[in-house]
Amino acid sequence: MNILVINAGSSSLKYQLFNMENDSVLAKGKVERIGMDTAIVTHEPADKAEAREVGEILEHTTAIRKVLEMLLHAQHGVLGAIEEIDAVGHRVVHGGEAFKSSVLVDDEVKREIKRLFDLAPLHNPAAMLGIAAVEANMPGVPQAVVFDTAFHQTMPAPAYLYPVPMALYRKHKVRRYGFHGTSHNYVSERAAVFLGRPLEQLKLVTCHIGNGASCAAIVGGRSVDTSMGMTPLEGLMMGTRSGDLDPAIVPYAMGKEDLTLSEISSMLNKHSGLQAISGLSSDMREIVEAMEAGDRNAKLAFDMYEYRIRKYIGAYAAAMNGLDAVVFTAGVGENSALLRKAVCEQLSFLGIEFDEEANLTGRGLEKRITKPGSKVEVLVIPTNEEWMIARDTYALVKH
Amino acid sequence: MNILVINAGSSSLKYQLFNMENDSVLAKGKVERIGMDTAIVTHEPADKAEAREVGEILEHTTAIRKVLEMLLHAQHGVLGAIEEIDAVGHRVVHGGEAFKSSVLVDDEVKREIKRLFDLAPLHNPAAMLGIAAVEANMPGVPQAVVFDTAFHQTMPAPAYLYPVPMALYRKHKVRRYGFHGTSHNYVSERAAVFLGRPLEQLKLVTCHIGNGASCAAIVGGRSVDTSMGMTPLEGLMMGTRSGDLDPAIVPYAMGKEDLTLSEISSMLNKHSGLQAISGLSSDMREIVEAMEAGDRNAKLAFDMYEYRIRKYIGAYAAAMNGLDAVVFTAGVGENSALLRKAVCEQLSFLGIEFDEEANLTGRGLEKRITKPGSKVEVLVIPTNEEWMIARDTYALVKH
Repeated sequence: MNILVINAGSSSLKYQLFNMENDSVLAKGKVERIGMDTAIVTHEPADKAEAREVGEILEHTTAIRKVLEMLLHAQHGVLGAIEEIDAVGHRVVHGGEAFKSSVLVDDEVKREIKRLFDLAPLHNPAAMLGIAAVEANMPGVPQAVVFDTAFHQTMPAPAYLYPVPMALYRKHKVRRYGFHGTSHNYVSERAAVFLGRPLEQLKLVTCHIGNGASCAAIVGGRSVDTSMGMTPLEGLMMGTRSGDLDPAIVPYAMGKEDLTLSEISSMLNKHSGLQAISGLSSDMREIVEAMEAGDRNAKLAFDMYEYRIRKYIGAYAAAMNGLDAVVFTAGVGENSALLRKAVCEQLSFLGIEFDEEANLTGRGLEKRITKPGSKVEVLVIPTNEEWMIARDTYALVKH
Repeated sequence: MNILVINAGSSSLKYQLFNMENDSVLAKGKVERIGMDTAIVTHEPADKAEAREVGEILEHTTAIRKVLEMLLHAQHGVLGAIEEIDAVGHRVVHGGEAFKSSVLVDDEVKREIKRLFDLAPLHNPAAMLGIAAVEANMPGVPQAVVFDTAFHQTMPAPAYLYPVPMALYRKHKVRRYGFHGTSHNYVSERAAVFLGRPLEQLKLVTCHIGNGASCAAIVGGRSVDTSMGMTPLEGLMMGTRSGDLDPAIVPYAMGKEDLTLSEISSMLNKHSGLQAISGLSSDMREIVEAMEAGDRNAKLAFDMYEYRIRKYIGAYAAAMNGLDAVVFTAGVGENSALLRKAVCEQLSFLGIEFDEEANLTGRGLEKRITKPGSKVEVLVIPTNEEWMIARDTYALVKH
């Protein structure tokens, strides 16, 4: 059975085609600059030459048609007929309280995703465009939706409620949802396998540290808390997002600088984080490079970024009253040995015996970066959200 | 040497008169409802009958004159002449970055406190009224100012900066200042004495849990982080303040409910916290009573409140890479055995062996509530900010 995984943004679309019989990726690629006459399609088949095309793609239906053409292409294709795609799985950012797991798409599901536009005004409409575009090009093919929020729906009320008037929750859905759920779920499952221990018995803190970043506290495979909140702005310091702030700073800055609601949101989401403190870049690789060349603002940005991750690990150990392992994943988490070292070496009180050697080797592989016998273990596990989406879709359609 | 300590609010004023030779309190009291024709003066001399007066007090100068009359009163007084007051110490909420310790009042100090009105628009102007009222009634008496923020000025940059555009720091002083510094300072010193260990060697988390509430991480007697931020809104859940939130909730709620800057500030400062979740009260005693009578919202409020304290203790242990003792102080921290139990019993992984018996006895006394041999100790230490203000004032004037 072949499953096509789609991650649709407002002007881009990523795809990956899985053969579920042997867990292999047949092809992957992306369409960028949708809406422009210089849109770019990049297609990477597993065993053939890559293809790249530039041309007019004005909306998502055409983008999906282009993807299908690539998958069926005489030279770069990997399928003989469109019917060889058995199902499509979509990433959807916000599932609100309605979706506690992945589901097959039907009319009611589509209505519910639309009701959530308000909570994810940039992301959910894009996902809907992806779903409609698949319907238009592949009528009758079963589609599933996999939500970034679903894994965190197991949080208890003291973790998901905010101490604000309850009318905000009842009328406007103000609560913690959390994001990156598919990734936290995936690496927690892999961690149990790697450690050779039942997931049901583990207390984990998973750190998904990419351009967006979040930590999760996971007890027995269930998320009990996570650092992103109602939106992906809360929690850790990120590439361009502030993360946690004194909430009073929002009205104060609005008053001082005469900012509108959308201007303050833009400032906190797009012009804060590493970018604001370093004055250089939102990219951890560039921050580390500048820091090593002696740049003091880059060093400050790195220290703040590290400090805030470390505090969340401590907070979540307290939330769970215990900690078996910490997992690093995503772009920065998988690749920045320096960041992992800075975090772990200052958590020795938890019983983390950091292994500097292991930290520096085995790039791209699942690995342990604590010494044998370390009371709390630390792992690096490359995430694979697309595979999780394919797996959930497969489970839903094979019944 | 006798020192008068003044804590002036916008419509109230508390006072306490210390004899520094023998560390005794000669009298204390308060003036409430300043600005009304039914203002109330309550005066409690140490060894005489209490006095209570109701009458017109329209501003702070009159309030201070009333206090002096009480202190010199034939029946309720404790002094023979006004000259027996050698100095006055004032509590000032916000010292910004200018004041890293207590100082004697002069013109430049007054100008600087005025410059900080912007950061503490309710509190600093009231303190200035108190200073002027003392000048008017007791010309020439030395006055000192003791700041709630000063103790936290030792925080390193990664703890005090927010990951927002640096212009907000440079132009508008947006940074973490922290509050309750006098209290965190006092209980950390007392903790070292109680434990019989040098303060220089201790890593402490002090929890000042009153109607306002904050935690501090204290290494070797110096504050390295604290939960209140630019304002007293950030951090723990409080009686009517929200504490930490997804910052995106602020513009979202403003947009949904069409709120002004001052309305959203009022909502988060005055109508959130325990009050909002319980729907009953901002007072922990009433929350616990209702919870024990089976009220589910009171139980939820209690659980959220406890959970957020517990996470800060874990976060600060991680910030310091270690923890020797946790200290509870202030109204709720000193009096709610149930809250301390809920927090401590779920921190056993840190090496806290909670002593239920000790927790329930010795109300009002400094005490240990962990078992002998507990790796991390937990203390209850009644705070005494007035005494700290008197001590600082004494140190400044005796030179």
